[in-house]
Amino acid sequence: MKTAELLEKLHRADQEYHHLGKTLALLQWDEETCLPSGGVEERAEQLALLQGIAHEHFVSPGIGHCLTELGSTPENPRGDEGLPALERDFLRVMRRAYDREVKLPVKFVSDAARAEGLSQAAWARARKNNDFAAFLPHLRAMIDIARQKARYWGYSDAGDGKGSLYDGLLDTYEPGLTARETGALFGPLGERLNALIKKLPPPQACPFLDQDYDTGVQVRFNHALMDYLGFDTGRGRLDVSAHPFTTSLGADDVRITTRYFPRNLLSSVFSVIHESGHAFYEMSFPPELRFSCLADGASMAVHESQSRFWENVVGRSRPFWDGLYPLLASHFPGQLGSVDIDTFYRRVNQVRPSLIRVDADEVSYSLHIILRFELEKQLISGELLPEDLPGRWREYSRRFLNLESETDADGVLQDVHWSMGSFGYFPSYALGNLYGLQFRAQMQKDLPEFDSALAAGNFKPIHEWLRDRIYRWGCRLEPSELLLKVTGERLSAEPFLNYIEAKYTELYG
Amino acid sequence: MKTAELLEKLHRADQEYHHLGKTLALLQWDEETCLPSGGVEERAEQLALLQGIAHEHFVSPGIGHCLTELGSTPENPRGDEGLPALERDFLRVMRRAYDREVKLPVKFVSDAARAEGLSQAAWARARKNNDFAAFLPHLRAMIDIARQKARYWGYSDAGDGKGSLYDGLLDTYEPGLTARETGALFGPLGERLNALIKKLPPPQACPFLDQDYDTGVQVRFNHALMDYLGFDTGRGRLDVSAHPFTTSLGADDVRITTRYFPRNLLSSVFSVIHESGHAFYEMSFPPELRFSCLADGASMAVHESQSRFWENVVGRSRPFWDGLYPLLASHFPGQLGSVDIDTFYRRVNQVRPSLIRVDADEVSYSLHIILRFELEKQLISGELLPEDLPGRWREYSRRFLNLESETDADGVLQDVHWSMGSFGYFPSYALGNLYGLQFRAQMQKDLPEFDSALAAGNFKPIHEWLRDRIYRWGCRLEPSELLLKVTGERLSAEPFLNYIEAKYTELYG
Repeated sequence: MKTAELLEKLHRADQEYHHLGKTLALLQWDEETCLPSGGVEERAEQLALLQGIAHEHFVSPGIGHCLTELGSTPENPRGDEGLPALERDFLRVMRRAYDREVKLPVKFVSDAARAEGLSQAAWARARKNNDFAAFLPHLRAMIDIARQKARYWGYSDAGDGKGSLYDGLLDTYEPGLTARETGALFGPLGERLNALIKKLPPPQACPFLDQDYDTGVQVRFNHALMDYLGFDTGRGRLDVSAHPFTTSLGADDVRITTRYFPRNLLSSVFSVIHESGHAFYEMSFPPELRFSCLADGASMAVHESQSRFWENVVGRSRPFWDGLYPLLASHFPGQLGSVDIDTFYRRVNQVRPSLIRVDADEVSYSLHIILRFELEKQLISGELLPEDLPGRWREYSRRFLNLESETDADGVLQDVHWSMGSFGYFPSYALGNLYGLQFRAQMQKDLPEFDSALAAGNFKPIHEWLRDRIYRWGCRLEPSELLLKVTGERLSAEPFLNYIEAKYTELYG
Repeated sequence: MKTAELLEKLHRADQEYHHLGKTLALLQWDEETCLPSGGVEERAEQLALLQGIAHEHFVSPGIGHCLTELGSTPENPRGDEGLPALERDFLRVMRRAYDREVKLPVKFVSDAARAEGLSQAAWARARKNNDFAAFLPHLRAMIDIARQKARYWGYSDAGDGKGSLYDGLLDTYEPGLTARETGALFGPLGERLNALIKKLPPPQACPFLDQDYDTGVQVRFNHALMDYLGFDTGRGRLDVSAHPFTTSLGADDVRITTRYFPRNLLSSVFSVIHESGHAFYEMSFPPELRFSCLADGASMAVHESQSRFWENVVGRSRPFWDGLYPLLASHFPGQLGSVDIDTFYRRVNQVRPSLIRVDADEVSYSLHIILRFELEKQLISGELLPEDLPGRWREYSRRFLNLESETDADGVLQDVHWSMGSFGYFPSYALGNLYGLQFRAQMQKDLPEFDSALAAGNFKPIHEWLRDRIYRWGCRLEPSELLLKVTGERLSAEPFLNYIEAKYTELYG
């Protein structure tokens, strides 16, 4: 076959895999937002069947042959040097996906999809009923599947050095990063954050937030908020799920979710800002990447850099609330009518280590991640047995957060990730904080009007900067390449820590 | 292969086809209830791909071979006489499905799915904007696809006798029935209904319904209504779409939709009762038919017999409203607080030929069907060109309903069926009325407590009778066999006409 034919065949296979992936994503989105409780088991069968079909289509020998013919090998994934840059990037991503996928037996892939479907539903029930025991068999299955998957990829049970099972899982989300390197970043990060927390004054009661906020009005406000941020609801939507998430069901169909608590207004609001940050990325890949494996984030940490940037750098800033607060207060005149912006802004940035990760302030947030990183490493290495997880969770909550979790629902069951088998995902959030503040440092150089635009509710320059510098690449660049291209730097915690220390010193004097 | 192996292979293929079919149904359900407008084109690609995959899996030569080896041929579809009855029924249904499917090229199937996805979205927009011209190219495509499909099946362009293209489409919904036979039933039916309408007093204004009914309260009432009828929301749900429908996404995941008009309370209420009738059927197939092609209605007309039975025989009866009216009135005290049950009951049964089929009274309803039956026959034979449809629609509205439709949105664009390519479906509704009243005659013999159970809001005896006599068979029996088994009769319009004439003579004296 000629080069053009080989490429066409690969693109066709990629496009099929893309459409099947989006269909799988709809089955999952629906499970978390709409599926009646009775439908869980049949849904798991649908997931298992379709995941198996997608896998078989993708790993057909023809694909491997095309890659090799185009010069793409594990050692030289980008293929022949004479090919256009876009095609070489495509080959790199295809080669990586193919090499990972081809090592997994179809029965394993299909069984894993079924087990994940069942596990997620079991987790949602267990969380609602505060019943860890009911979730335990599913957690055990998820751990077994994750370990087995890493073994298929060639990672080793022995020790926790480079090449450990956990490294294999981490690599799914942050290509090339090891547990050791992650730990080396997280150690000093945790220490400096803890040192800062000790210096801050104790949190104060906040009577104006400790009231009922009608959830119907919260729904209306959050839709208005999406509109305010520039979320095009002709190309996406907002729904409700047990745990907030973003999923792309198509280039022009990107969906976010949140959840509503009458006595926690800020939970839904910051979830919507966070998930919108993911959605902007997914909605903004350039047309030439449409229906392709390149239409994806550079890594999960880069994805989280976007959501965490919008949630915190934008969403917890003073100019942002200068612009938005009147709209919020007009939705809740009874509760907020007499609360001034200074008071509100301080509360939005109050540092109060809390049990729930997604509701955490910017300073203590990364400590939640470090806690999970330590625990999931132990779960995957086998050092920690699943049945001992709740006890270890409480112990680590005291150690890392100085908090006592009262229930498993607000403790070890609070997050959806392990129930989906997504071990190795959590570090992405804390890494995303680091990426996000490195990007922000560059953005501030390029956009001196940053603060005034925020205050005016004009997000256009920010959207454009992100599109021009980050979104346009999809996953054509490795995360470290992207960072270098945008900022000229390597990954570092300094910009994040500088930002945190400066902001909270100013806030608390 | 041995018999057991052959059967197992067939069952496995059937199960795969079943799960893929349910996944396709989710893609379609989501398109009609959730999909952002921007997502339509990519959704069409997803539908095209998955429909193609499902087709290819189903028509693999192995399936045909297994059927033949088990003695199932087009002439003797039930296969070897020594097989258990359930397996023979399975072979009959598989043979029919295989023979129809195998004649269609995969590219045709895939292209048709894509076109249908695009057409439905275009129809919803066109209906909203009252813009027939925008829908016309899609309608043309749907007609071409339907004609081509019938040709692949071996039906002929020549004349409109037995074996015409339209017969081929009709056979999809009502196996074995021809256009000629249908016309022979519909002719006298239309005449007697028209004669009755002429005898009835002219409709009167109804100020208590001509008011605003808050749609939020309508939503709450309809959920309460589903509960009242015995709809298990752990196994199904209610959503909103441009046109009400029911879809089964799994044995324990059956979804209905309705739509809300502030000034038409009864529209949402009767749609919910109608669709619940479909849903009860889909939710109640016995466990031995699970994940199988036998877990389906005997025909579309039998399916509509269930929805029309609940909507009319149950839902427009006096004892039903004796039980339910207090609940409705309590939701709308301002509008209904001073309206007595007699007045309400008469209004629910007021005969007033209306433009909208799904809002029609029991007497004029079938005339809407006869109109559509005549038009779709002409569209498929080529006698009527798509661009001339709106004019012909208005002409037939005058002729059959004595009504002038003011807009295309309330005329030719009101129904979703043609936009989905479902030509040949409409007769099912009027046939369903006939089946339904034949079943009802038998039910009344078996359940002397019918009226008192309705008045008490106790639907258990009715659910049990339907489960025991109809649902338990899935599509194991041909519709005529089912009718014979349940009632000892052949299809006839007499029981329906007798019911209508008796009911409306009593109501109007």
